[in-house]
Amino acid sequence: MTYCVGIKLNAGLVFLSDSRTNAGVDNISTFRKMIVYEKPGDRFMVLLSAGNLSISQSVREILQVEHLKETETSDPITIWNATSMFDACRVLGQAVRHVYDRDAKALQASGVEFNVNLVFGGQIRGEGMRLFQVYSAGNFIEATAETPYFQIGEYKYGKPVLDRVLTPDTDLDEAAKCALVSMDSTMKSNLSVGPPLDLVVYEANRFETDKIVCIDMQNPYFRMLHSGWGQKLREVFDSLDDPVWDESHTDIPLRTEASGRSKPLKKITRPEEKLI
Amino acid sequence: MTYCVGIKLNAGLVFLSDSRTNAGVDNISTFRKMIVYEKPGDRFMVLLSAGNLSISQSVREILQVEHLKETETSDPITIWNATSMFDACRVLGQAVRHVYDRDAKALQASGVEFNVNLVFGGQIRGEGMRLFQVYSAGNFIEATAETPYFQIGEYKYGKPVLDRVLTPDTDLDEAAKCALVSMDSTMKSNLSVGPPLDLVVYEANRFETDKIVCIDMQNPYFRMLHSGWGQKLREVFDSLDDPVWDESHTDIPLRTEASGRSKPLKKITRPEEKLI
Repeated sequence: MTYCVGIKLNAGLVFLSDSRTNAGVDNISTFRKMIVYEKPGDRFMVLLSAGNLSISQSVREILQVEHLKETETSDPITIWNATSMFDACRVLGQAVRHVYDRDAKALQASGVEFNVNLVFGGQIRGEGMRLFQVYSAGNFIEATAETPYFQIGEYKYGKPVLDRVLTPDTDLDEAAKCALVSMDSTMKSNLSVGPPLDLVVYEANRFETDKIVCIDMQNPYFRMLHSGWGQKLREVFDSLDDPVWDESHTDIPLRTEASGRSKPLKKITRPEEKLI
Repeated sequence: MTYCVGIKLNAGLVFLSDSRTNAGVDNISTFRKMIVYEKPGDRFMVLLSAGNLSISQSVREILQVEHLKETETSDPITIWNATSMFDACRVLGQAVRHVYDRDAKALQASGVEFNVNLVFGGQIRGEGMRLFQVYSAGNFIEATAETPYFQIGEYKYGKPVLDRVLTPDTDLDEAAKCALVSMDSTMKSNLSVGPPLDLVVYEANRFETDKIVCIDMQNPYFRMLHSGWGQKLREVFDSLDDPVWDESHTDIPLRTEASGRSKPLKKITRPEEKLI
């Protein structure tokens, strides 16, 4: 499996990916799932990939030479000369479709679904930052202020903390911390998501970054986050009152039947009784 | 969808279920997913169900009359006279198989998978408490001290807090709180899991319980848990240090390249460069 997250904030972009792939549970390998495309001063783009590894590797390979032509005579558009992230993402979508044309039929004959999911974000000089999620059909959606992030792969375990923390105003370091907590929760629950992690933080309007780091399990910051989060979650849990079953002893009674709002569950106490 | 959890502790059992069912997102209904079977002084059993509602309702219906016969002449075993929870669970497994025999072929013809998941636990006089998870094939597994709980339905969002809190020594009220926090996380992330909630707490060797409550969103305890957990999680998150990118200013540097353990990601800066 895989877990990747891309976040778009007013202050910049954050990308985080794991690097575990698996075919079943008995064949686990390490593959990096992030690529950074950078032309300093002109464009900065990051691609995260999940799904079938042979497909995502092929997409990454041909993306370097892929191009769109609006008309027969117009100049080809590539990710390196596109004037908008939207156009660059269209080039990526076309790369996905080329791999589909080449491989999907043979994959289907082997019972393998054509499955690839991509997050693609960055900034090209002349416009603001943009973040996209690209599907297996080469179509894509763009992140907005209401949903400032995209996840691909094993997204469920790590989603709650993103929802609680991220808004467009979140600062970059806080968002990076949030992505790492999200990854930590995911790795705790799904063995097929694993280190090392690749983290990239991009500041708006820089068109380059040096905040690129590979984090392994010896990384002191990640270790602090891992143990601190687990321990403090437990403290929070303990600090919340336990339920009390006798209404007379508490301001927070568990029962609400008294108000008539909810009907208690019926018990079946004899074989001939039925609930349904 | 559905989310149900059953927990087996030394002190007793805890069961919690939501009550939302859906066919797509445009057809949402309320169905209770918990049934309590109680013969005071003799046996106390709870059944939680997830999966196809027509299947689980049929299983519940015929469970009342289902019986096993070890030999042609032996007395029939039902959930009401079984001398062990293991035998009662075999009766339940057989009920699932009867519904399979009756419905699976027609469902398959309509492209519907035969899908039902059950949690079944309780205590019959003469043995300790037991907790089982029953699959669509009518086979089942039993909870042990290492994994003292079973979840069915949308299990991922609510699993981390169970893993962090539950051990066989956890007390009953704390486990009930843990189940409710787990449910709260699930309802926050999956619209197809929803109130009212049914909660049952059973104390070991009582063979009955009056701790049965239906919790709606006006329940003051659940409201306290919902807002308290969200707010305190955020405080914990804020209390953890943000990453610092300059090693000279922190004891918890984010970078680990200096140690040579992890290889940083390579950037692609020219069209002709390749990473793979």
